[in-house]
Amino acid sequence: MKLPHLLTVDGLSRSQITTLLDTAVEMEAVGHREVKKIPALRGVTIVNAFFEDSTRTRMSFDLAAKRLSADTMAFSSKGSSTAKGESLRDTVLTIAAMGVDGFVIRHMGSGAPQRAMDWTGLPVVNAGDGMHGHPTQALLDAYAMRQKLGDLEGKHVAIVGDLFHSRVVRSNLTCLRTLGAKVTLVAPPTLLPQGIREWPNVDDGVAITTHLDDVVPTVDALMMLRVQRERMSGGFFPSEAEYTDGWGLTRERLTRLPEHAVICHPGPMNRGLEIAPEAADNARSLILDQVNAGVSVRMAVLFHIFAGDPTPDAAPANDSTPAAAGNENEGSK
Amino acid sequence: MKLPHLLTVDGLSRSQITTLLDTAVEMEAVGHREVKKIPALRGVTIVNAFFEDSTRTRMSFDLAAKRLSADTMAFSSKGSSTAKGESLRDTVLTIAAMGVDGFVIRHMGSGAPQRAMDWTGLPVVNAGDGMHGHPTQALLDAYAMRQKLGDLEGKHVAIVGDLFHSRVVRSNLTCLRTLGAKVTLVAPPTLLPQGIREWPNVDDGVAITTHLDDVVPTVDALMMLRVQRERMSGGFFPSEAEYTDGWGLTRERLTRLPEHAVICHPGPMNRGLEIAPEAADNARSLILDQVNAGVSVRMAVLFHIFAGDPTPDAAPANDSTPAAAGNENEGSK
Amino acid sequence: MKLPHLLTVDGLSRSQITTLLDTAVEMEAVGHREVKKIPALRGVTIVNAFFEDSTRTRMSFDLAAKRLSADTMAFSSKGSSTAKGESLRDTVLTIAAMGVDGFVIRHMGSGAPQRAMDWTGLPVVNAGDGMHGHPTQALLDAYAMRQKLGDLEGKHVAIVGDLFHSRVVRSNLTCLRTLGAKVTLVAPPTLLPQGIREWPNVDDGVAITTHLDDVVPTVDALMMLRVQRERMSGGFFPSEAEYTDGWGLTRERLTRLPEHAVICHPGPMNRGLEIAPEAADNARSLILDQVNAGVSVRMAVLFHIFAGDPTPDAAPANDSTPAAAGNENEGSK
Repeated sequence: MKLPHLLTVDGLSRSQITTLLDTAVEMEAVGHREVKKIPALRGVTIVNAFFEDSTRTRMSFDLAAKRLSADTMAFSSKGSSTAKGESLRDTVLTIAAMGVDGFVIRHMGSGAPQRAMDWTGLPVVNAGDGMHGHPTQALLDAYAMRQKLGDLEGKHVAIVGDLFHSRVVRSNLTCLRTLGAKVTLVAPPTLLPQGIREWPNVDDGVAITTHLDDVVPTVDALMMLRVQRERMSGGFFPSEAEYTDGWGLTRERLTRLPEHAVICHPGPMNRGLEIAPEAADNARSLILDQVNAGVSVRMAVLFHIFAGDPTPDAAPANDSTPAAAGNENEGSK
Repeated sequence: MKLPHLLTVDGLSRSQITTLLDTAVEMEAVGHREVKKIPALRGVTIVNAFFEDSTRTRMSFDLAAKRLSADTMAFSSKGSSTAKGESLRDTVLTIAAMGVDGFVIRHMGSGAPQRAMDWTGLPVVNAGDGMHGHPTQALLDAYAMRQKLGDLEGKHVAIVGDLFHSRVVRSNLTCLRTLGAKVTLVAPPTLLPQGIREWPNVDDGVAITTHLDDVVPTVDALMMLRVQRERMSGGFFPSEAEYTDGWGLTRERLTRLPEHAVICHPGPMNRGLEIAPEAADNARSLILDQVNAGVSVRMAVLFHIFAGDPTPDAAPANDSTPAAAGNENEGSK
Repeated sequence: MKLPHLLTVDGLSRSQITTLLDTAVEMEAVGHREVKKIPALRGVTIVNAFFEDSTRTRMSFDLAAKRLSADTMAFSSKGSSTAKGESLRDTVLTIAAMGVDGFVIRHMGSGAPQRAMDWTGLPVVNAGDGMHGHPTQALLDAYAMRQKLGDLEGKHVAIVGDLFHSRVVRSNLTCLRTLGAKVTLVAPPTLLPQGIREWPNVDDGVAITTHLDDVVPTVDALMMLRVQRERMSGGFFPSEAEYTDGWGLTRERLTRLPEHAVICHPGPMNRGLEIAPEAADNARSLILDQVNAGVSVRMAVLFHIFAGDPTPDAAPANDSTPAAAGNENEGSK
């Protein structure tokens, strides 16, 4: 499978998502080898352009690229010409003109990755744009859940928290529905987006409620969203105590979670606010599995974008399909 | 050809510059291979020491080094001992003592790269020092123009803008004159350096004027210099409107530019100030070609400094001459 | 020898330290090869997590890792979730979950590297923690002195300066005593830690005094500690003039230093305060040798932690013992 880009999970078919997750399983195996690299993207240069800080996402993409033997370059808008007023268009055109092969872009503006791709003609991976989407987060969440729960068809996943500001909820909703999961969205009344029932991905398989307690005993997976404390002063956010009381995964709610159900959180956590330490560190918590899945899923995404259809003399076939990709030591013999 | 360093274009012969540009042509071809790397500088560590921010120049050098398989380390003065008052001498001696192979240095002080070389005995590439010079910018400008105009002998290049503060004008003037081009320097009266007619590189082939309109119809290339807005408050700078009116490449002037003539700008641009969007995005604009040329020219410079005369058992001959440098995949077979 | 970590020099036997220093000798030789790399840590990812700025220590570890062909990732707490209040535990667990192989940690909190190791189960190298220790600095000091003075058994080393705040004095004292050197600690009365005579590593071979002049003619090595100017306003610090007068290595004291004795300083220096320029730049000064030793010693430490016991098919024996580690070019043939 050759992907031209990953701007959004909208439009990805169930079979495409499944292929990505299956490739990620093979990529995870690379991390357990003696030499944790494959030469699939040797000579490929990927620019991690983060117009918005996100240390963990940047590190995850960087590690994924390195495991595929790509070269990476970091672009941060701080201290750059962007800070001096250069437009996004001129910035990405300039970097593209250096002859790099593609971008991973995080930007506060919804649609910025799409525009960067239109301007440069290079493949772009969206690493989070405004409140629009965060497709690799949705894929890694699906990956981590699938590893524990099996096929997500018919599984019940609740997404709990600040649906209004979250950039992951739309991506997750689409990804989970495409994979056949039923989804319940849970939020305080003031943090439910007004037109949410008209969202194109809110169909018959999606329920919306403000009552977490009704939902907890019925789920296979509980995804707790991060509370952005800087948004709590806006007036329409509940107080911390109210939030925890109504929509936090407390110790008490943990006791009512089904035995087999798993707990997700995109991190970083506000322990004691949206999630109790007992839940975060619970055996059913997938929080560190999600981080681990992030590297494997991003390897898969970069692989399907940048390593399709190699010419035979440039890279032998067994270097360029993940299934057959050899240990680097073996590969060079 | 083995270069000991690249501190300035002064003193480079026409044949040396031509060899650098010819090597850059071969280096550009590396960027079109399946695996965009050659192993010429494997095991060589180059420190990008930027005592002054310049994201695009740093990225260009970094990419150039990586394409040659060198390792790079970034040194930024922020948060370092330099910020705590350590002298430049102790800083570069300390980094050199780690066993690195050379420096790329950008510094606000004219002559800093020369001093760093004297202190450490290591090869240094000047990536811009004060108002003194910026030799790789001059070489990449010449490269981009030569690719479009052919041999620069007898060609007419106008350099337009803030000649007083520009670090590229001296380097460009010398480089273009060495290659046989005629140069006209154009600036507002207050931004003409006082003693400019006595500069050693201002000879019979150089004209100086304050009237851009006379020059536009006669050029083969128009190099627009960047206006540094932070310098516009100094009192002797024209207002923005006056500047554009008298020395900007406006839409109107664009119509009077010869059909075959090209437009250069070192970037980042102030669109609408020194250059109109119609000019920047024109088919005759070399602005992105210059960025692209930057990587190839810097690869050539690093190659001629760091890869001369390899011993046979360390690197086979076909790895160390750019002409014969194989595809990395082939090389490892 | 396989080391599980390097949190402190306490508990390292004389034979272990000697093995590390002997390996460092071999590692130094790698830096004199045509291709200055060995493939010992290919596919190993080491995170340089610096919760406190230290450009030179970070660069030294980064270069050491790259010479061993490891991949490195930088984590800096600035702009990260740590800055937003994430706990150290969640931060290191998250990075570890990405599948990295180990950490180099610098932190203002004593014991942070130990805790990071306990939480993650990954090997950790302490790159300086609070006032607790800085084991690689102690090892590189010993290395540099041993290269000039030979076996340190019975040698007399004076450590001079701010014993109260220094993080290196404890590590150096232990390391030097373990290697059989006699140590004299010299400090202004106000900068002698109160209970210093009860420190476990202050035994019969250690003398403590406030009089530098008595000590100078008797030493084989004089280690001048750095004065942290930001601590001088605390009230109990002597004035700059008093400090230099009583505890600085002045030009005058330099004349009374034995011919064969060497001068050390961990850098960065305050020239003219704790050390006169004549001493810093003297032929007997090891200051740049220490920097150079830093890379070799850190290569040795990383090697013994991350390259023990490779399985035969993952890396041939001659890649994984430093003594036999071939030139990278030869290795790939």
